Amino acid sequence: MKRTAFFISDGTGITAEALGNSLLAQFADIVFERITLPYIDSIEKAHEVVTAVREAHIKDGTKPILIDTIVDENIRQLISQSEAIKIDIFSTFIKPLESELGIKSRYSVGQSHGIVESQRYKNRIESVNFALDNDDGMRTRHYDEADIILVGVSRCGKTPTCLYMALQFGVRAANYPLTEDDLESNGLPSCLKPYQNKLYGLTIDPFQLAAIRHERRANSRYASLTQCETEVVFGEQLFKSLKIPFINTTTFSIEEISTRIMADRGLKRRIN
Amino acid sequence: MKRTAFFISDGTGITAEALGNSLLAQFADIVFERITLPYIDSIEKAHEVVTAVREAHIKDGTKPILIDTIVDENIRQLISQSEAIKIDIFSTFIKPLESELGIKSRYSVGQSHGIVESQRYKNRIESVNFALDNDDGMRTRHYDEADIILVGVSRCGKTPTCLYMALQFGVRAANYPLTEDDLESNGLPSCLKPYQNKLYGLTIDPFQLAAIRHERRANSRYASLTQCETEVVFGEQLFKSLKIPFINTTTFSIEEISTRIMADRGLKRRIN
Repeated sequence: MKRTAFFISDGTGITAEALGNSLLAQFADIVFERITLPYIDSIEKAHEVVTAVREAHIKDGTKPILIDTIVDENIRQLISQSEAIKIDIFSTFIKPLESELGIKSRYSVGQSHGIVESQRYKNRIESVNFALDNDDGMRTRHYDEADIILVGVSRCGKTPTCLYMALQFGVRAANYPLTEDDLESNGLPSCLKPYQNKLYGLTIDPFQLAAIRHERRANSRYASLTQCETEVVFGEQLFKSLKIPFINTTTFSIEEISTRIMADRGLKRRIN
Repeated sequence: MKRTAFFISDGTGITAEALGNSLLAQFADIVFERITLPYIDSIEKAHEVVTAVREAHIKDGTKPILIDTIVDENIRQLISQSEAIKIDIFSTFIKPLESELGIKSRYSVGQSHGIVESQRYKNRIESVNFALDNDDGMRTRHYDEADIILVGVSRCGKTPTCLYMALQFGVRAANYPLTEDDLESNGLPSCLKPYQNKLYGLTIDPFQLAAIRHERRANSRYASLTQCETEVVFGEQLFKSLKIPFINTTTFSIEEISTRIMADRGLKRRIN
């Protein structure tokens, strides 16, 4: 059983995708082909959507699902003429919100770039720069400014997690790799000692770690299972002995790792 | 007029935030305090939410808004007893979807980490590594594997855009900085010539560029308005003369820049 799901927006389409994907995840037995159509901001483009929906209907032999966050009423109405299972986010929620709040919505597309917005934007860019500048223990002198410092062995997911926290939440995240030197000295690296309340450990299943490392440096000592096991065990012992909270990244998505760390450490989104 | 908006989820909270923020953006006159409460996955935590909502109600003197993506029915019902303006995404959309699709949803929390999911995850991580390895023209020998190569002057937004495309969409994005050398040779750098159909230009308002560069290197020639203007004009002329599509990043968010580039170049999400 196959079905096409359209995520349609007059903006980026990211909200429609996020909501759409989380709804579709509830129907695991169906194979969905997902098509995102962003920037549908004219009657002409709306007509193209209607055509695409009709073609998918004919091709699949099943009614497509249409999840849209279109704000403009004319465009929305045109699209809603499609024969489809429709999830119309704005008409569902904006009207009740308007009557509850007692004011009209602006019915405008996307985000404005007022002063608040540009502050948020700047903050995210600065957070990305912070993550890049303070990646992989390259620099340790800016840890005063960090919101969080991730610690873990090479290739356990530190960098993507830091970058995600920066881009999505404007959080200043640094990361420091636990290396063989730390393993031999058998304690917390001295540059981390003043920041123990900002540390968060990442660990990973040694088999998965070995597989990841093999892709970078095939058949190296670095990628061997023995080496991976030794490092992972050392890391976890360090976290436990110093009561550093940690998370096993093996079965979590980057979103989950990031939001769990933030919840655990009480970190606030800086972009709201 | 102030009001608290709660984004509540038994998972990461990212969907509730995305939808919530896009709905609240329609009511620009109201100052919202936004509070995300992720991983509300027990009755105990649900009770804490009810308490937090009640306290916000008393403090603000206005009914809070409660936007939730809770899947579990017991937890959702408990939370829905709060006195609040409620936007309950699952009960609104899942039931109609079930009856239209003719099957029951799994009513499970978050994403599964089956084989498909772990493929997506791996792809995103590899895309992040690709963006980092091919950032800022550091390496040019992997451009064959790139989905897109962003070109533009230093600090116009190339790196955050590449990282966002990698994390959000699993797209392989490289970037190459236009420097003074390119300006003098007055043409496309030779390493880019074979990849003209993958190029996408970024440009920016020279005043904003100067401001951004000043924060990095205050009062340098690099940050001077004259220098910024010269580089920006050169870049835009290059894009126009070679018919390289380009976008002015000055007033766009990273999401907008990324999704517009992808729409323009017909790039598909690799994580759906």
